[in-house]
Amino acid sequence: MDMAFTSQEFEERLSRIQAEMQVHQLDGLLVTSPPNFRYFSGFDSQFWESPTRPWFFLIPAEGLCTAIVPEIGAPLLKGSWISATLSWPAPCPADDGVTLLAGALEKLPKRFGRIGMEFGRESAVRMPLNDLFLLKDRLKNAQLVDGSPCIWNVRAIKSLAEVAYIHQSCTFVCNAFDKLPTYARAGQTEREIGQQLTADIILAGAHSVPFMAAASGHGGYEQIISRPSSRTINDGDILIIDVGATVNGYFCDFDRNFGFGNVPDAALRANEALWDATDAAIKLAVPGTTTTDLWRCMSNVLEKAGAQGYNVGRLGHGLGLQLTEPPSHMPGDNTVLKEGMVITIEPGMEYAPGKMLVHEENIHITPSGPQILTRRAPRELIVIDR
Amino acid sequence: MDMAFTSQEFEERLSRIQAEMQVHQLDGLLVTSPPNFRYFSGFDSQFWESPTRPWFFLIPAEGLCTAIVPEIGAPLLKGSWISATLSWPAPCPADDGVTLLAGALEKLPKRFGRIGMEFGRESAVRMPLNDLFLLKDRLKNAQLVDGSPCIWNVRAIKSLAEVAYIHQSCTFVCNAFDKLPTYARAGQTEREIGQQLTADIILAGAHSVPFMAAASGHGGYEQIISRPSSRTINDGDILIIDVGATVNGYFCDFDRNFGFGNVPDAALRANEALWDATDAAIKLAVPGTTTTDLWRCMSNVLEKAGAQGYNVGRLGHGLGLQLTEPPSHMPGDNTVLKEGMVITIEPGMEYAPGKMLVHEENIHITPSGPQILTRRAPRELIVIDR
Repeated sequence: MDMAFTSQEFEERLSRIQAEMQVHQLDGLLVTSPPNFRYFSGFDSQFWESPTRPWFFLIPAEGLCTAIVPEIGAPLLKGSWISATLSWPAPCPADDGVTLLAGALEKLPKRFGRIGMEFGRESAVRMPLNDLFLLKDRLKNAQLVDGSPCIWNVRAIKSLAEVAYIHQSCTFVCNAFDKLPTYARAGQTEREIGQQLTADIILAGAHSVPFMAAASGHGGYEQIISRPSSRTINDGDILIIDVGATVNGYFCDFDRNFGFGNVPDAALRANEALWDATDAAIKLAVPGTTTTDLWRCMSNVLEKAGAQGYNVGRLGHGLGLQLTEPPSHMPGDNTVLKEGMVITIEPGMEYAPGKMLVHEENIHITPSGPQILTRRAPRELIVIDR
Repeated sequence: MDMAFTSQEFEERLSRIQAEMQVHQLDGLLVTSPPNFRYFSGFDSQFWESPTRPWFFLIPAEGLCTAIVPEIGAPLLKGSWISATLSWPAPCPADDGVTLLAGALEKLPKRFGRIGMEFGRESAVRMPLNDLFLLKDRLKNAQLVDGSPCIWNVRAIKSLAEVAYIHQSCTFVCNAFDKLPTYARAGQTEREIGQQLTADIILAGAHSVPFMAAASGHGGYEQIISRPSSRTINDGDILIIDVGATVNGYFCDFDRNFGFGNVPDAALRANEALWDATDAAIKLAVPGTTTTDLWRCMSNVLEKAGAQGYNVGRLGHGLGLQLTEPPSHMPGDNTVLKEGMVITIEPGMEYAPGKMLVHEENIHITPSGPQILTRRAPRELIVIDR
């Protein structure tokens, strides 16, 4: 298996999570979800698409980890410096790792009697809950509690190696977007255009394209979360395509808008207001600014430009091994930006009923100012067949 | 949004799940995972890649359903005949849909005092468990129980429309595999070959390629779950690529093997034994056969051919809106095949230490005999630059 990072990178992750676990009084942290399993173990697979077998990674308060995995995965993990590997012949619906897991948890030294799991915000546990309830009953001297704040605190701060992969994803998708005006025409469907764009992103070098949303309409669109549809692009339409492609699991997440033919003036002006909102927030994206400051700065620009509403609930978010990660740029979030965070700047608005526009760029927070990982969109909308 | 099925299809799904709920004594069934949300609502999004917002779909014992979704998704669901839509401004970490959800569950008529969730086999709940525990505490007159057997019983039997999408996925990937010998050469990496194959699958018409595993080695490989790596293909190698591509969410899942140059005779013979095992199981894949019969039939052929071991734990599985679904062809499973099931036939073995080979085809169970949805691989290994 290709290792995307040095051993030192994993040692640092382990030492940072163990420091957090100390603060949160955890004797162990048990992770089950693909991004967390991958973050701490370095193990990459596409096998997560199969829901049949659970995978477990156990981080103790001190010392090295234990991977508890189905036999099919054991050969890949056996060489890892970071962990011992336990495995069982799976699938085995009668006992899919539960006994093995309970044994490993019982053996952990207990100082606090608390084992963290992915119970909190923007987290989910990837194992049958019947098995989790069994596990809970079997644990004599520890309770299962929320460990997600520890995980998010550590994952929020990216190493330069992580940022480099996000930057690569951004570049591959920018290269593919640059070609779009050479083949996209009114009369094609969203799907046809999205198909070519996906192929170009893969051929540019991205490892996968887990996310591509598209929408289109006369001078704007109504939503931004559907897959490219069979809708035909007409004169005057704006097409948005929002892409999450990965390199070694690290996502870019940004959109581009394209006009076709005679795009209404109001749409062109709203598009420029969104560019201005993006620009203002990027300038503010330095250590010490809060996510709520970013939201307010963008909202001010959009309100002046006549924003009428917006159903997305925030104007950007964290980015990394998942398409979206905490924090959220919104009222009440108030997360202080720190060196090493990677975020999206994503202002959007309805400038008229049913006519939404959204911009997005990806930013690395550094002490010497914001590093824009995407190639910045032009202020003036790119219009095809004008 | 494109609807992939007629209203009648969803009415039938609803009526089938409500019949199962009656048998399992459920007053409601609450689903949270993308495949189940999509199966019952028809709602498609790539937005599931973002873990920030939970989505809920509530099926009552009688009558129509309720979608409880973040505002960002509400416009897409409002036109649906199948459900009423409730929504909340999300993200809202303080109460991400829990109060709305608890209200909807309280309003369900209670006959049994039981509400099913995705607690069981090959299932996971996609919401923060902190919120699930809150919900459990708030429910006064019902308990949350395992509803996954109802779901799997219904999803296991595919309509002809579902089978047609799986068939399309298979055909697109077969078309792309057919081109592979025209560009793949020893000296390239697995990743370069996988890149071109992915682009060809997308351009052939598949909507996405969520799964592509690859492995290679002299006369065989050691594992089958890694992403295509930077390993260079050498003379004498066999390369396996296993693909899960989708059309309207419906997966194909099959692999193809390619030899390069002077492939050892033992590998060629083992490859033919795997073809024979596949063939024997396909002939047996009719209503009334059990998954364990299929396993035994393949095992017999492989043992005679000198199988030394295998860490995958089964020789095939169900297929549909997920890359793998129950049942599993293995000892103890004993699921009786029924008309409308779609399964993989997937024999594999180590014929020498560290030298694994795996075959796979996709089959639709019909009363008039097995319908092979893939274009059958040739018995003799395709060897490039022989």
